[in-house]
Amino acid sequence: MEQIRTLDKLVEYAKEIGPKKVAVACAEDHVVLEAVERARSEGIVDAILVGNADKIAEEAAKAGIDLANYEVADCKNGAAKTALMTVEMVSSGKADIMMKGMLESSDFLRAVLDKEIGLRSGKRVLSHSYIHEIKGWDRLIFITDGVFNTYPELADKIGIAKNVTELCHAFGIEMPKIACLAAVEVVNPKMQSTLDAAALAQMNRRGQIKGCLLDGPFALDNAVSEESAKHKGIAGEVAGKADVLLVDNIDCGNALFKSIVYFSENKTAGIILGTKKPVILTSRADSAETKFLSIATAVAMSK
Amino acid sequence: MEQIRTLDKLVEYAKEIGPKKVAVACAEDHVVLEAVERARSEGIVDAILVGNADKIAEEAAKAGIDLANYEVADCKNGAAKTALMTVEMVSSGKADIMMKGMLESSDFLRAVLDKEIGLRSGKRVLSHSYIHEIKGWDRLIFITDGVFNTYPELADKIGIAKNVTELCHAFGIEMPKIACLAAVEVVNPKMQSTLDAAALAQMNRRGQIKGCLLDGPFALDNAVSEESAKHKGIAGEVAGKADVLLVDNIDCGNALFKSIVYFSENKTAGIILGTKKPVILTSRADSAETKFLSIATAVAMSK
Repeated sequence: MEQIRTLDKLVEYAKEIGPKKVAVACAEDHVVLEAVERARSEGIVDAILVGNADKIAEEAAKAGIDLANYEVADCKNGAAKTALMTVEMVSSGKADIMMKGMLESSDFLRAVLDKEIGLRSGKRVLSHSYIHEIKGWDRLIFITDGVFNTYPELADKIGIAKNVTELCHAFGIEMPKIACLAAVEVVNPKMQSTLDAAALAQMNRRGQIKGCLLDGPFALDNAVSEESAKHKGIAGEVAGKADVLLVDNIDCGNALFKSIVYFSENKTAGIILGTKKPVILTSRADSAETKFLSIATAVAMSK
Repeated sequence: MEQIRTLDKLVEYAKEIGPKKVAVACAEDHVVLEAVERARSEGIVDAILVGNADKIAEEAAKAGIDLANYEVADCKNGAAKTALMTVEMVSSGKADIMMKGMLESSDFLRAVLDKEIGLRSGKRVLSHSYIHEIKGWDRLIFITDGVFNTYPELADKIGIAKNVTELCHAFGIEMPKIACLAAVEVVNPKMQSTLDAAALAQMNRRGQIKGCLLDGPFALDNAVSEESAKHKGIAGEVAGKADVLLVDNIDCGNALFKSIVYFSENKTAGIILGTKKPVILTSRADSAETKFLSIATAVAMSK
């Protein structure tokens, strides 16, 4: 397949693949319903709306959505039970994708990680990636992980790299270029971020992390800008051409993706990685468009 | 004075104050000379160009600059000696501002920190701040410290907060709003960035950090966007209105400022803080415009 370089292209691709079935936990939120309705009307998904049916009807009315196009699964036993009911639909194969509605992330994730009916894939690391389309850039920029892993150890970062590689493959990027970010591009014994980056780069060379070109440490400028990489004399296949920015910790990743969302002209999607089936964990602050594009991402992943 | 909200306004203000005298260490770099010439022709500075006079003449010719407007101090004894010769001019009062030219940051900073003729102000913490004008924002955004302090302890962060407060005052921001950044806006015993933020916020309330309104932890969105702060239910005078983003560590700060520089429509300046006289440490990758705006910042600071 051709490499997906814009989120409009992603939506086109999701239309080709879809409709997939998404199960929404606690669907009583008009912004979530708006995003789901857009995805449904474009032929990307069908949806099972799980939650308090009365409240779902209220929120659907707010957004002008006809519930006749949906399966509504009533559950009035609270968010935790609703999340479990939703995840069971996905793990049993009744639905393809799980999506977070109006509930706490902790309740949602507890269901995702449930040992019996959850979506955890063995001991695989769970991680999150944002996908940004930024004005003036010729490719999508993936940022991982600014949401889920707080202070990942090297072993976790291996999982994060593998997960985002799989995501990139779903976007038609055959050999994604992953840049491990630090503040500097030299390995400094006093900066753990640079040591982890060096270890990951070497693991990639030794075939321990496959399907991608991983290098680091990089500062952001020489990761994404060929001019800057040249200026600093940094060679290699990743320098200046990174698709993925793999960050050291959540403080960095969170500030970085929010900087793009708030300070740049951008479109953004996000997804949880490493689960048996795609899981969409958007936050309340995300726009309906981000939620919609995240659904399209999940559909691309569920192929 | 009126609050400076754009870097064009900063330049106007620097013209009112100037010309100040800047001493450039290792001035043999045409990009640095271009920035200095622009500042000189706008009446912001006069300059002493310290370094290899032959090479300075070569680089000036490249940039079409007439050296008759400058004092050139010849020094062919290497970068370290040149930096010491430059810092002595500033500490002795012959010049007002010190600026880095074509030499390693380590050589430059060694001179700045020299115990006898350097510019260190007692035991005061040295720090760096970027100043960003970002399209669509009604105020300048200060980011500290993405350059100088790697993994500052709480005690260092107090100094960083005090330094940036002084910078903001020079920009006419009477009570700058400083947001301590983390990935979340709740105090989490397992996230040191949030604990430091809480301590700093309380120190501000107790009058231990004066001249500013400091609060945290914040995630970037609820620090700068009132809508996002409201959405998350975060109150206070800083929430959604931050002028300053005080980051936990260099990995975060470096990625954050470079994200603004590379992904947004922006103008950017930078300066070293906590010294007896203003010090400009721009990097080779900075544009002539950033170097020029950094000179204007130093002039504003040297009032």
